Amino acid sequence: MTATTTGANLGEESVRERLLAEALTLFNSKGYAATSVREIVAAAGVSKPTLYYYFASKEGIYLELMNSTLATFEATVAQLVIPQGTARQRLLRFSTGLFDIFRENIEVARLIFAIHFGPPQGTPNFRQQVFFDQMIAVAAGMLQEGISTGEFRPVPVGDATWALISCLNTLMEEHLTNPEPRLDRAGLERTLGMILDGIAV
Amino acid sequence: MTATTTGANLGEESVRERLLAEALTLFNSKGYAATSVREIVAAAGVSKPTLYYYFASKEGIYLELMNSTLATFEATVAQLVIPQGTARQRLLRFSTGLFDIFRENIEVARLIFAIHFGPPQGTPNFRQQVFFDQMIAVAAGMLQEGISTGEFRPVPVGDATWALISCLNTLMEEHLTNPEPRLDRAGLERTLGMILDGIAV
Repeated sequence: MTATTTGANLGEESVRERLLAEALTLFNSKGYAATSVREIVAAAGVSKPTLYYYFASKEGIYLELMNSTLATFEATVAQLVIPQGTARQRLLRFSTGLFDIFRENIEVARLIFAIHFGPPQGTPNFRQQVFFDQMIAVAAGMLQEGISTGEFRPVPVGDATWALISCLNTLMEEHLTNPEPRLDRAGLERTLGMILDGIAV
Repeated sequence: MTATTTGANLGEESVRERLLAEALTLFNSKGYAATSVREIVAAAGVSKPTLYYYFASKEGIYLELMNSTLATFEATVAQLVIPQGTARQRLLRFSTGLFDIFRENIEVARLIFAIHFGPPQGTPNFRQQVFFDQMIAVAAGMLQEGISTGEFRPVPVGDATWALISCLNTLMEEHLTNPEPRLDRAGLERTLGMILDGIAV
């Protein structure tokens, strides 16, 4: 928020953001299907037409939450894949960087995991798997490059990728569900480093 | 089912099993909270008093699903931890054995994951984390033993355990949510074998 933001813009932005935040809280506490437009507008302190103006519907709010998170994710991935350092360094930078944006967006992540593992809730069409798929694809590329340059032994790329992304995925889940996570960011770096040491030449 | 089973016993057993199976299907397709006793008895083709006779309530059915699965899990773990072979062989036997009972009980596993990652649904008190916690504890013990005997290097046990159980956990999730899983049981063995080779002396 800069000093040049006008009062009107500030108001509009905050209404829109408030609707997104309250919808997310309700989706996570009651479930998407059980949350009504009436509850969202009541929580945000606005009228129904205000929600319809910004998002058209509950589905529109859901898609905005998913699409804006995907945009953040993709922008972060683009920053994290800079070809600097060894394959080992790049894989660690990529994984810890993803863990960081996960932590920054943990409530949207909570919704994504709930929808992914829960029963169908009538959510609009959005492939939550896209996040996992992209993590797999980028890590596989980095591993393949490390094998090509002779930094890693010629292990099956799919297996090694699975090991790395599984550690990251399970750590995210631990931080979503365990108030006292058994592993932190530094533990992720150690675990991935141990796996990468194991396939190093 | 043996030849000595009487018709009456068969009938009782199948009503009970049918109630459990239909409840599980409904919990997985609609969610636990949205499923009513009326729907469960209608799907099983029995009356409400029949459900109350066997399970007392919807909560009772849920607890029976969880507790019987936990009993199966614990019996399987007890079989899988026999101290035979190297630590590497034992860890692979343990992990693939757990993957096998997961596959055999995949619909209960689906419910466990949905409850674990979803919003609170008013389910009766049962710690779904007990499965994950026990997997971690047993694998850590086997790794520790492998380190003690000099089979593995003295890596941090918690990190190595995390790597192994993460691969298993994420593979289970893949089989729950992806109609065409990218890794199978043999892939799990290869991936874990790769990690264990990496920490071998």
